[in-house]
Amino acid sequence: MFFGENDQNVIERVLRARRDVRGNRFTDRDLSDSDLERILAAATTAPSVGYSQPWEFVIIRDPSIKNAVAKIFEFENLRAQTQFENDRALQYAKLKLEGITETPVNIAVFYTPSDKPVLGQTSMPDMGEYSVVCAVQNMWLMARAMNIGIGWVSIINPDKVKNILNAPKQNKLIAYLCVGHVDQFLEKPELETLRWEPAKVLSSLVRYDNY
Amino acid sequence: MFFGENDQNVIERVLRARRDVRGNRFTDRDLSDSDLERILAAATTAPSVGYSQPWEFVIIRDPSIKNAVAKIFEFENLRAQTQFENDRALQYAKLKLEGITETPVNIAVFYTPSDKPVLGQTSMPDMGEYSVVCAVQNMWLMARAMNIGIGWVSIINPDKVKNILNAPKQNKLIAYLCVGHVDQFLEKPELETLRWEPAKVLSSLVRYDNY
Repeated sequence: MFFGENDQNVIERVLRARRDVRGNRFTDRDLSDSDLERILAAATTAPSVGYSQPWEFVIIRDPSIKNAVAKIFEFENLRAQTQFENDRALQYAKLKLEGITETPVNIAVFYTPSDKPVLGQTSMPDMGEYSVVCAVQNMWLMARAMNIGIGWVSIINPDKVKNILNAPKQNKLIAYLCVGHVDQFLEKPELETLRWEPAKVLSSLVRYDNY
Repeated sequence: MFFGENDQNVIERVLRARRDVRGNRFTDRDLSDSDLERILAAATTAPSVGYSQPWEFVIIRDPSIKNAVAKIFEFENLRAQTQFENDRALQYAKLKLEGITETPVNIAVFYTPSDKPVLGQTSMPDMGEYSVVCAVQNMWLMARAMNIGIGWVSIINPDKVKNILNAPKQNKLIAYLCVGHVDQFLEKPELETLRWEPAKVLSSLVRYDNY
């Protein structure tokens, strides 16, 4: 299949417009099964090492499970604040960093390791996890094109979340996603606007042939 | 920005048409600086934990460096073959799994850890690496929309590659990419066509509320 300049512009616009969406942007609108399936189908087109497709998805709609995960977030988030100093700790405390209970659907994305050797994973064992991350990014971009927001919550204890979800011991939690319709997507990453971190300049990130 | 059904279809087609491209598909055509910059710009729009943008890119055009990396691949690839049994070892030996010397440009993508705490990375330390993987997937999709192929070579010893590139000790090699124009993109993943692994059915990968 050949793509043209028009298609390239669509990809570029979606890449640039994708945002990590937090709780204060999500609306009450439910997420339909067909929208959810379209997002999950995008995940399965991700590259995977040795075509291992080492991903599993837990779709969470049960409020009691969301509340339990939200408690884990609150604990870890308080613990996190203490690691920043002075003004940054104060600024951190004001940030809204997740939308666990505000979203109709949470998705826990797991890496399911193989018990046999996997082509391409014999020298770099992390490749299995990286495949799952690619699947998450595909979901994020597909959702954005559908004007649906996703927030990736990483301020959680993965083992505690696994316990709540009764996940098999060998599975690794890669991502905990909050998914739903939004009132707007911010123009820029919120942490850039709030001057938490400046945008890096591409030329400062590139080397030629070696360091 | 609001996207319509047309944009959604473009995203879906690019996601599905993206392939891991190996050496036998790349052509002699050079990669222009403007094409390369467009692919790198796509990387920088990836999500990153705490807006840390923890990525660096080494653009390799020097044949002697490519040859040195290709030697590392050959060693690791022979080692890998011994881990598969009987027919699979024979099948493995026949596969072309990289395009290091066949491509005009290789890109080594590094994770650059921060020496300060990073927002969102305090409970899940792997989030920094995962951000870099999202950047790689963005590059892959942008390149595919530009009809440019990327192959991710993971059958290498990352420390040996770091030595060749004189990379700082704290940097972690996340991906080694072979980038160039191609004669065609395969309809399906090659490992599916060759029956190395079957495609998984989405319904088998989804759980509801918990395991």
